[in-house]
Amino acid sequence: MKIDLNADIGESFGNYTCGMDEEVITYISSANIACGFHAADPMVMDKTVCLAKKHNVSVGAHPGFPDLTGFGRRKMAVSPKELKAMIQYQIGALSGFCKAHDIKLSHVKPHGAMYNMAARDKSLAIAIAEGIKEIDSRLILLGLSGSLLVDAAQEVGIVGANEVFADRAYNDDGSLVDRSQKGSVITDDNEAIARVVEMVRLGTVKTITGKRIPIKADSICLHGDGIRAVEFAKKISAALIEEGLEIAPIESVMQEVI
Amino acid sequence: MKIDLNADIGESFGNYTCGMDEEVITYISSANIACGFHAADPMVMDKTVCLAKKHNVSVGAHPGFPDLTGFGRRKMAVSPKELKAMIQYQIGALSGFCKAHDIKLSHVKPHGAMYNMAARDKSLAIAIAEGIKEIDSRLILLGLSGSLLVDAAQEVGIVGANEVFADRAYNDDGSLVDRSQKGSVITDDNEAIARVVEMVRLGTVKTITGKRIPIKADSICLHGDGIRAVEFAKKISAALIEEGLEIAPIESVMQEVI
Amino acid sequence: MKIDLNADIGESFGNYTCGMDEEVITYISSANIACGFHAADPMVMDKTVCLAKKHNVSVGAHPGFPDLTGFGRRKMAVSPKELKAMIQYQIGALSGFCKAHDIKLSHVKPHGAMYNMAARDKSLAIAIAEGIKEIDSRLILLGLSGSLLVDAAQEVGIVGANEVFADRAYNDDGSLVDRSQKGSVITDDNEAIARVVEMVRLGTVKTITGKRIPIKADSICLHGDGIRAVEFAKKISAALIEEGLEIAPIESVMQEVI
Amino acid sequence: MKIDLNADIGESFGNYTCGMDEEVITYISSANIACGFHAADPMVMDKTVCLAKKHNVSVGAHPGFPDLTGFGRRKMAVSPKELKAMIQYQIGALSGFCKAHDIKLSHVKPHGAMYNMAARDKSLAIAIAEGIKEIDSRLILLGLSGSLLVDAAQEVGIVGANEVFADRAYNDDGSLVDRSQKGSVITDDNEAIARVVEMVRLGTVKTITGKRIPIKADSICLHGDGIRAVEFAKKISAALIEEGLEIAPIESVMQEVI
Repeated sequence: MKIDLNADIGESFGNYTCGMDEEVITYISSANIACGFHAADPMVMDKTVCLAKKHNVSVGAHPGFPDLTGFGRRKMAVSPKELKAMIQYQIGALSGFCKAHDIKLSHVKPHGAMYNMAARDKSLAIAIAEGIKEIDSRLILLGLSGSLLVDAAQEVGIVGANEVFADRAYNDDGSLVDRSQKGSVITDDNEAIARVVEMVRLGTVKTITGKRIPIKADSICLHGDGIRAVEFAKKISAALIEEGLEIAPIESVMQEVI
Repeated sequence: MKIDLNADIGESFGNYTCGMDEEVITYISSANIACGFHAADPMVMDKTVCLAKKHNVSVGAHPGFPDLTGFGRRKMAVSPKELKAMIQYQIGALSGFCKAHDIKLSHVKPHGAMYNMAARDKSLAIAIAEGIKEIDSRLILLGLSGSLLVDAAQEVGIVGANEVFADRAYNDDGSLVDRSQKGSVITDDNEAIARVVEMVRLGTVKTITGKRIPIKADSICLHGDGIRAVEFAKKISAALIEEGLEIAPIESVMQEVI
Repeated sequence: MKIDLNADIGESFGNYTCGMDEEVITYISSANIACGFHAADPMVMDKTVCLAKKHNVSVGAHPGFPDLTGFGRRKMAVSPKELKAMIQYQIGALSGFCKAHDIKLSHVKPHGAMYNMAARDKSLAIAIAEGIKEIDSRLILLGLSGSLLVDAAQEVGIVGANEVFADRAYNDDGSLVDRSQKGSVITDDNEAIARVVEMVRLGTVKTITGKRIPIKADSICLHGDGIRAVEFAKKISAALIEEGLEIAPIESVMQEVI
Repeated sequence: MKIDLNADIGESFGNYTCGMDEEVITYISSANIACGFHAADPMVMDKTVCLAKKHNVSVGAHPGFPDLTGFGRRKMAVSPKELKAMIQYQIGALSGFCKAHDIKLSHVKPHGAMYNMAARDKSLAIAIAEGIKEIDSRLILLGLSGSLLVDAAQEVGIVGANEVFADRAYNDDGSLVDRSQKGSVITDDNEAIARVVEMVRLGTVKTITGKRIPIKADSICLHGDGIRAVEFAKKISAALIEEGLEIAPIESVMQEVI
């Protein structure tokens, strides 16, 4: 049984450093690399693609809204057509560095507000999925598990992968409990690991109301923005291997699923 | 005998329209498409790639400095490494739209201050040529005729094409007479056409001092920024055909040269 | 009886020209000048402030969202605190040029999506009004007639001015009919002028359903983005004078109102 | 005898944190606050102005080139007119926050490449000095000691203050030894302090060749970008007080000088 561990990396910008990329990359199997809109610049992207290559980690594009000040976390009212063009621009830009370093681009995971908006808005989800397909129909679209974004992948005919969060509580409908609500974040490492094992092994998760619901887990999102995040990455990676699970890049996981 | 006519198109941005792309494209064989740094945005790039496809014109990337306010015309002190990353980002971004519309990217022509700086600075010229080669060694690098940029292409092992200007005077060393100098711009259409024919047929040009010097002309730069520019494009296109020259995309011209 | 005619000017950017500022400014009494976020750059702002000074027109700041690609027309999910900081930055920036040219800043009119969002969202409207007051409590806030933005001015203790549109239809609740709906734009010049005269003289307007509702008109928004717009500006200006109305800058109108 | 200690603060941006502003501000008398071009955003500027107010530190504008990726450290070929407009925009923007928090703007110190270029180019230096004077002739221009920038202040009729560096070696002509050269940076804290004391007390400095040259020191530049920098700020502050020097804001120092 395979599971992918992914993290968003390459989010430094110019003179600004962000994230512990060099550390977290040793625990993940897939990397989502920022593309210059919400974070990163050409030099950072080049360096990050090299880092991923060196660690033999699958490379994905991590496109975001053109909002560096807001780090792509502010919702923007974009049309599906605008969104598709933004996505294609950013996938293309990252592909440039992949070609230059002779490595494959495996997947696309939208960032921040774009990820959240597309999870709930079909026209935006379809725009993203179509944008990806037009560039390369073998690219995997990584989205919130069970969301419209994963559905859209299937609808347009590309592979959609379900992402779950180790440290986030779920509502009964499978959506994430809003960060503003009490109990939205799982702070106990062991509990987080146990939840992930259940999601991967059994395909279920206990919601914030105590109900057990089905959930698909193709990839687990880890964070890389601090020492504690890196320590958790190390811990969960070890625990999953201990459990007999194989940590594998997203395309390897999806080959098994399909 | 073949000659390429190229123009910089797709330089609109957001709400701002610039250039008469729809008109000038009917007279050219190669289009240099802005990549979002000095001009253009993802929607404009998508539209412009479609326009080039519709008119069966060769598509090239037209990367510039990240200076939208200055339209990429202000010199910036970038390192060769920074320049290479900028180039690869922009080529990649445009390639995304080429893939989406299933057309080939044929060449790269740096824009504005980047073009001028690289014509005279070997380390920058090599950075551009290497950046292109790493992405795709079949891409043609279009630079100022006889400049270090064209030399750099040869040095790294890609094809360098020589661009000449119909409406600009040349110095004895083959460089362009600075726009601030008297006589730098050829304002008489017939004179401009006669000069181009001489450059293409005989490989020579009369300099501002009256001397005749050798010059290589693989591609002629046309402008598309006004009615007069479009009229001149029409005129020179007709005149060259009348002269028995074949107007052909840059890769077709270069196949003959090589 | 006084009425202000305002227009958004100074929306060119770098190499891109937009609007017929030199023409429209001869018909208006107040100018809303873009501040570099949705449009304009420092050189354009400097030039536009000079133009307004030359024509003795009241100068207002026209702050927008930091979205040059979308011309500030795309809604962005900003917090009141972020919005207030954006507003203060832009008012400050324009004030720099006003000081340099020794003219007074008289008012602030938010642009595009910011204007529309603040018309309906009290917390955003208050953020704008407070941001303005903190800088200078004598600045007038120009907003959609009868909207929360004008209310917010009163609530925080600055003068709020009601803007009406000559060429737009109104709903029964005083809001503008959405541009996507049939009949949203008044295309007949004489009808538009008659509507404005009624709004100014009687304080009423006939809505899209045929009902007559009260509406306050302190200032009329004119456009400057084409020959037809400029011609209409000339026509309405002449018609209002003919009607015995005095075209006067917004602060002069508001002194009378208060 | 008075001396000013200044530091560049408020250089964080959006999600990115940079500098130990809260620590370094306790040791300085004047703060140079980034204005959103090379660093900072409206929220950061607002917060930084508040911080300066809280610590009763003089506030200066720290304008830079519009090059966030390069942190304003890359030379850009701007015309004097463009530079003047950039300066006025940024001074204005910071003034907005100063007004909102009811504190005075005392000085302007150009950043990075702008500072270095203006130190050697008279037309750029004059453009900066004039830009400042037009906004407020009481603003002090802080520039490299003995450079054209300080001269330009005098020429246009504003106060120019001479900045010296505790940790940098000087050439015989009073310019800074380029960072690429051996011995350009003084790494011994006590030596750095002794040099500063000599510069302030005697108005001389020992150059890299061992010669003693005259140098004016109105303000000393401290750094705030790391624990060591903050520790040095503490150390030099204590040492100068011990020496009987009064650490005072730049306008207080300059009143004495003039």
